Amino acid sequence: MKKQRLSVAGRPAVRVDAIEKVSGKAFYTGDMELPGMAYAKILRSPLPHARILKVDAGKARALPGVIDVLTRDELAGLNYHYGATYKDQAVVAVDKVRYVGDPVAAVLSADELVAEEALGLIEVEYEELPFVDTVDDALAPGAPMVHEGDVPKAELRGSKYGAPDRFKGTNVCYHFGYARGDVDDGFARSDHVFEDVFRFNRVQHYSLEPHICVASFDGERLTVWSSCQDPFTLRGHLAGIFKLPLNRVRVVVPYVGGGYGGKLYVKADPIAAALSVRNGRPVKLALSVNESFKTVTRHPARIRIKTGVSKKGELVARELEVYMDTGAYADAGPRVTQKAGYRAVGPYRVANVKIDAHGVYSNTVPAGAFRGFGAVQVAWAYESQMDMIARRLGVDPLDFRLKNLLEKGEHYTPGDTPVDCDLKQGLRKVARALDWKKTSRPNVGKGLSVCMKDAGGTYKVAGATVKMSSDGSAVLLTGTVEVGQGCRTALSQVVAEELGIELGQVSVAQLDTDVTPFDVSTSASSSMTVMGLATQRAAQDVKKQLLRAAARVMGEKAGNLTLKGGRVRGAKGRGVPYSDVISDYFGSSATEIVGRGVYQDKKSKTAVLGSPTTFWEVGWGGVELEVDPDTGVIRILKYVSMADVGRAINPLQAEGQDEGGVLFGLGHTLLEEMVYEDGQLLNPNLVDYRVPAFHDLPEHFISELVESGNGPGPFGAKGMGEGGVLPAASAIAAAVEDAVGLRICDLPLSPPKVWQRLHERRQGK
Amino acid sequence: MKKQRLSVAGRPAVRVDAIEKVSGKAFYTGDMELPGMAYAKILRSPLPHARILKVDAGKARALPGVIDVLTRDELAGLNYHYGATYKDQAVVAVDKVRYVGDPVAAVLSADELVAEEALGLIEVEYEELPFVDTVDDALAPGAPMVHEGDVPKAELRGSKYGAPDRFKGTNVCYHFGYARGDVDDGFARSDHVFEDVFRFNRVQHYSLEPHICVASFDGERLTVWSSCQDPFTLRGHLAGIFKLPLNRVRVVVPYVGGGYGGKLYVKADPIAAALSVRNGRPVKLALSVNESFKTVTRHPARIRIKTGVSKKGELVARELEVYMDTGAYADAGPRVTQKAGYRAVGPYRVANVKIDAHGVYSNTVPAGAFRGFGAVQVAWAYESQMDMIARRLGVDPLDFRLKNLLEKGEHYTPGDTPVDCDLKQGLRKVARALDWKKTSRPNVGKGLSVCMKDAGGTYKVAGATVKMSSDGSAVLLTGTVEVGQGCRTALSQVVAEELGIELGQVSVAQLDTDVTPFDVSTSASSSMTVMGLATQRAAQDVKKQLLRAAARVMGEKAGNLTLKGGRVRGAKGRGVPYSDVISDYFGSSATEIVGRGVYQDKKSKTAVLGSPTTFWEVGWGGVELEVDPDTGVIRILKYVSMADVGRAINPLQAEGQDEGGVLFGLGHTLLEEMVYEDGQLLNPNLVDYRVPAFHDLPEHFISELVESGNGPGPFGAKGMGEGGVLPAASAIAAAVEDAVGLRICDLPLSPPKVWQRLHERRQGK
Repeated sequence: MKKQRLSVAGRPAVRVDAIEKVSGKAFYTGDMELPGMAYAKILRSPLPHARILKVDAGKARALPGVIDVLTRDELAGLNYHYGATYKDQAVVAVDKVRYVGDPVAAVLSADELVAEEALGLIEVEYEELPFVDTVDDALAPGAPMVHEGDVPKAELRGSKYGAPDRFKGTNVCYHFGYARGDVDDGFARSDHVFEDVFRFNRVQHYSLEPHICVASFDGERLTVWSSCQDPFTLRGHLAGIFKLPLNRVRVVVPYVGGGYGGKLYVKADPIAAALSVRNGRPVKLALSVNESFKTVTRHPARIRIKTGVSKKGELVARELEVYMDTGAYADAGPRVTQKAGYRAVGPYRVANVKIDAHGVYSNTVPAGAFRGFGAVQVAWAYESQMDMIARRLGVDPLDFRLKNLLEKGEHYTPGDTPVDCDLKQGLRKVARALDWKKTSRPNVGKGLSVCMKDAGGTYKVAGATVKMSSDGSAVLLTGTVEVGQGCRTALSQVVAEELGIELGQVSVAQLDTDVTPFDVSTSASSSMTVMGLATQRAAQDVKKQLLRAAARVMGEKAGNLTLKGGRVRGAKGRGVPYSDVISDYFGSSATEIVGRGVYQDKKSKTAVLGSPTTFWEVGWGGVELEVDPDTGVIRILKYVSMADVGRAINPLQAEGQDEGGVLFGLGHTLLEEMVYEDGQLLNPNLVDYRVPAFHDLPEHFISELVESGNGPGPFGAKGMGEGGVLPAASAIAAAVEDAVGLRICDLPLSPPKVWQRLHERRQGK
Repeated sequence: MKKQRLSVAGRPAVRVDAIEKVSGKAFYTGDMELPGMAYAKILRSPLPHARILKVDAGKARALPGVIDVLTRDELAGLNYHYGATYKDQAVVAVDKVRYVGDPVAAVLSADELVAEEALGLIEVEYEELPFVDTVDDALAPGAPMVHEGDVPKAELRGSKYGAPDRFKGTNVCYHFGYARGDVDDGFARSDHVFEDVFRFNRVQHYSLEPHICVASFDGERLTVWSSCQDPFTLRGHLAGIFKLPLNRVRVVVPYVGGGYGGKLYVKADPIAAALSVRNGRPVKLALSVNESFKTVTRHPARIRIKTGVSKKGELVARELEVYMDTGAYADAGPRVTQKAGYRAVGPYRVANVKIDAHGVYSNTVPAGAFRGFGAVQVAWAYESQMDMIARRLGVDPLDFRLKNLLEKGEHYTPGDTPVDCDLKQGLRKVARALDWKKTSRPNVGKGLSVCMKDAGGTYKVAGATVKMSSDGSAVLLTGTVEVGQGCRTALSQVVAEELGIELGQVSVAQLDTDVTPFDVSTSASSSMTVMGLATQRAAQDVKKQLLRAAARVMGEKAGNLTLKGGRVRGAKGRGVPYSDVISDYFGSSATEIVGRGVYQDKKSKTAVLGSPTTFWEVGWGGVELEVDPDTGVIRILKYVSMADVGRAINPLQAEGQDEGGVLFGLGHTLLEEMVYEDGQLLNPNLVDYRVPAFHDLPEHFISELVESGNGPGPFGAKGMGEGGVLPAASAIAAAVEDAVGLRICDLPLSPPKVWQRLHERRQGK
């Protein structure tokens, strides 16, 4: 596909919000101040599982300065159960607490310290219950039930979520099953069958900005400023909880200091909203880092993967049993589990497949959406096993992969969109960058990995509006949240490109559900494709109107006119400035041109998930590392990441996204793990829980964008930003094995663990 | 015209912002707080006219807590001259000060008291100049020139403003001339010729909320929250001053506490914006009542009117010489003068007409737009003279008017829209309500009046968007500013009516130039017609899409379906809720329906003002009053006001508007006058300047709406709200003459003046 010549898009433009952000002027939810605003603080459960016998807020209410206390007794009149997929979570706990951190009550005061103090005066009596804080415990026969009885389902678009009856009376809350071919027959016909179990650690998103919102109820309308990724979804949930029509709930999203999936759906907003509705004054609720750790995490997972291989080295059958620990409440767990299940086979040609993926409740922090959305856990498993099989068969893991990778145009599952890029070409590039065939020195090893996820989301809907003012400059209305990923810049580049104006002549309006066209969510690497197309179409709509006006004004055919440098150009001459075209055509500069664009996913009865994959997001990763056998420390000497971006709308940002993705991968591979002991989360803070810092960067870090114009987005773009996360863990684990001959199947590969396993091997254990 | 049956429109709905406002939760610009916000205070000229020799801010800058001082030395790099029609005003004074109150400098501090204190430390040296503080002085030969040399004109839509060369070297800055027939010949053929001079006092809008704005420049974009009536115009002016493209200026309008024209165009916003741009932090600038008095007023006027009458009592010729005192800067003065001139003949049939209207500079507060926009002043003159002529001819003023009033369908001027209502019918109704023919007791008198203005504005452009969410509720995006007039309620009623939903299911989004469709201004009684139509069309666009979806879902023809009670109804059955139609049609409730509507005034080469009158706004007023000869106090026993509203979208609000209009009329007729002495404004405060209070209400107050469905707006509506202001002064002056035989031609008819004139008469002066 020939690359279209572009002027503004396709270039490494400086972020449009750069000056605002580096000068500290960018407005975040925390900057919001309103007259009469008060502060909410949350009392959280100290126990992993307990029945609530009593909540007495009398003493707390009596503390001078306390405006209100929200307990289960104050929920009457609300639809107080909510949830992304199941309505299993209450605004504050009603019957039981289900994890350490579960909100039990909230205090409102104009003085934050008073609110904190009052938390200690709320008297709660608990009856402790046995708990489960691992998937294994949760699945054990006779395990305590996190939720008794049926959990009501949320009204959902598209898919239905649930679990078959055979899971009744267990903690399994969701099951996704998929099979093709005959997996038993496949194994029977295989020359080698391998079965391995992998475990993925519990990690937290750690956005620089923890969860925060300001809610203000004026007597009729509820306005919420929220650090969230899906304001329209949040609006819907709040409307449901407070029994308001959608026009009476307004969600405004200022800049968001990182999301990574952790700010999707409903988090603490209903507590702030309930306090505002009760007290008729604005309420700010800002969670601490500690509290955000207790709000949402990535799903820990246990994945059993059984693979049959022919003697030619071809994959014949693959069976997957995936258990995703969704914590105390389902949140997006069923969706994540579904996607994990769907993606579990890996980018390989396997005729016989059987997948069973389960979402499992436990008495831990709820797990929800997180960059990679289920693909991270299963990629860790399927790519690790690819290396392990190759090693067992004595073949090169690169060759083994190349033999089995899907070709461009092949189907991952029948009915879905065919694979849209050359998986092998990318992997070969990574290998070359690693000098793959060259032997390393002792304790140094190499690994590589290729992972694929169906990206762009399911049943996506997005609208965009472009308003061109009479001077030719434009404002874009888009529901994509600027979470730091650079969407404002990249989408503005699309508008500027289509309209033939400079990037500085495009601004992005504040996101406000009242006025911004509907968008499902900022997730699934969808923005550059889904919102990108809506935006491009809106700009094209403006362009069409402008050309029509220009044709009249200039006396030429619209088809002969082009837009460039803020002028409409005809066959000859310097062209006419847009401002002149507009004021001549409309007879006045007191006007504007408004364009609308819409994107809507197709439905398909043959697609497994109901809607064909928008595009395939592919991440290739390769690593060379050194293991220090005396400390267990893994030093990343070189990391090569490649991302298929179709066409980079902003290469600088795309590289930044990819690098960021790799850093997330390094984090959960080498450092991060939320540690539970006796149901207690031991390290919900940045001292005991280590996220990657600058010194954790690979010593040599290559991020390369593959641009073949193969994406469905504007100018051939694909979405990106999640691909870089996927290959890290398996590539690193393989390189560790290459370096020191040690295979670790449970993340993270932290220094103590690596040292311990090496030590055990030396001890002959 | 048969009235269309309506469900939500046409009913006295309670204001949609009632709860917010009475509970104090409604958000005004003054409620805006931003991190790092500082406060601006303005140093104003103490002299009516002076050359500025020196402005030294050194000591002020040195005061601890002062962030910045803005003087003429800090204007470099800005297009610092601005103005609604002429660019004659500077952000702060540069060469001269031209009235007492002219901004000379501004101080910025995080502490308001420090800012106040620093004002006193700014050293300004003036060279005093002779000044003119009345129209008479300003027009005198050899009068001091307020502006020397040519004043640059603003880029304007539609009309051009200026004055012919013969006014060079005078303070006349604008001239409007119009003539038809042969006025000299007319007078020659008249049996009676009357010539009178009327004077209109200088009055202030007195909005409960004085002028206020918050400006915040983030390094690239300027955002201004402003209590203004025309955010798009303000955006344009600010973009011009700060040399920014329009996409980099955003004006947000929270609730506005009254405008009445005083918040149109540019007021103090450039000062706040300049300080924010210089200092990179948010700046709040809140004027005091005193300062708002020194910011904008209504035009004082001197009107000479010469009328020729036949012996049959028919008007034969009318010559008008109008002088409007626009103060130190033109502001909207040329436009107001143009309209005053155009409207000066009154609603009568006169074949020979000659009008000369002049805008005149003086060393007083700038005069700009004010409810009635020039019509108030000329109506005072033409209706007073009708009474005086009738009295001189010994005929009944009612009969004299009825003989000369234009018929419905007649043209006020050739090429303009014909008169669209029955002027006589309304006047007769007023007379009946007053028991016109019944003689009053001593010192009690009656008067009546009928006035007409071309309304709806000139070259109006308005857009509206309606977003229907998946539950059938809707949000309206409109550029009409809620200044207290109830536009949110009335426009929401139009949306609810068209969409078949309840009023509570419609909300109005915050006005924000980034996202709100373009609208010229909230002025000229235009909103219910101009924005009403845009809104109705946007709702109809949603309706069309909804019906199309319903036709598909329900398997019926769209033409057979109707919307009612939130359900699409076909030939039979209870109908299908919108939410079901939407989620069935789109396959998901994660969507919305967006509709757009636009209104644009026609241009016409034959219309005097270039664009035919949108509709004629007519106000009838009648009064019965008692004059206390010992005190000069006028007690209003009964006031009858009638307004032709076409169709009242909200009769309760329409009556409120009309009553409010009458109160403004009573104010400038009986109480209000800004008093100048030696160039000093003596009473810029609410102690010395009296606005009507509750006890000034007429003892018996009738406001009646004429609804004949003759308006061009939704469901036959016209705009209204200005008509009630117009007849008050002339009706009251006539009633005073009827009561005590005293004719006063200069407003106000304040107790001292009435007493004085009665006293003089008793003295035989």
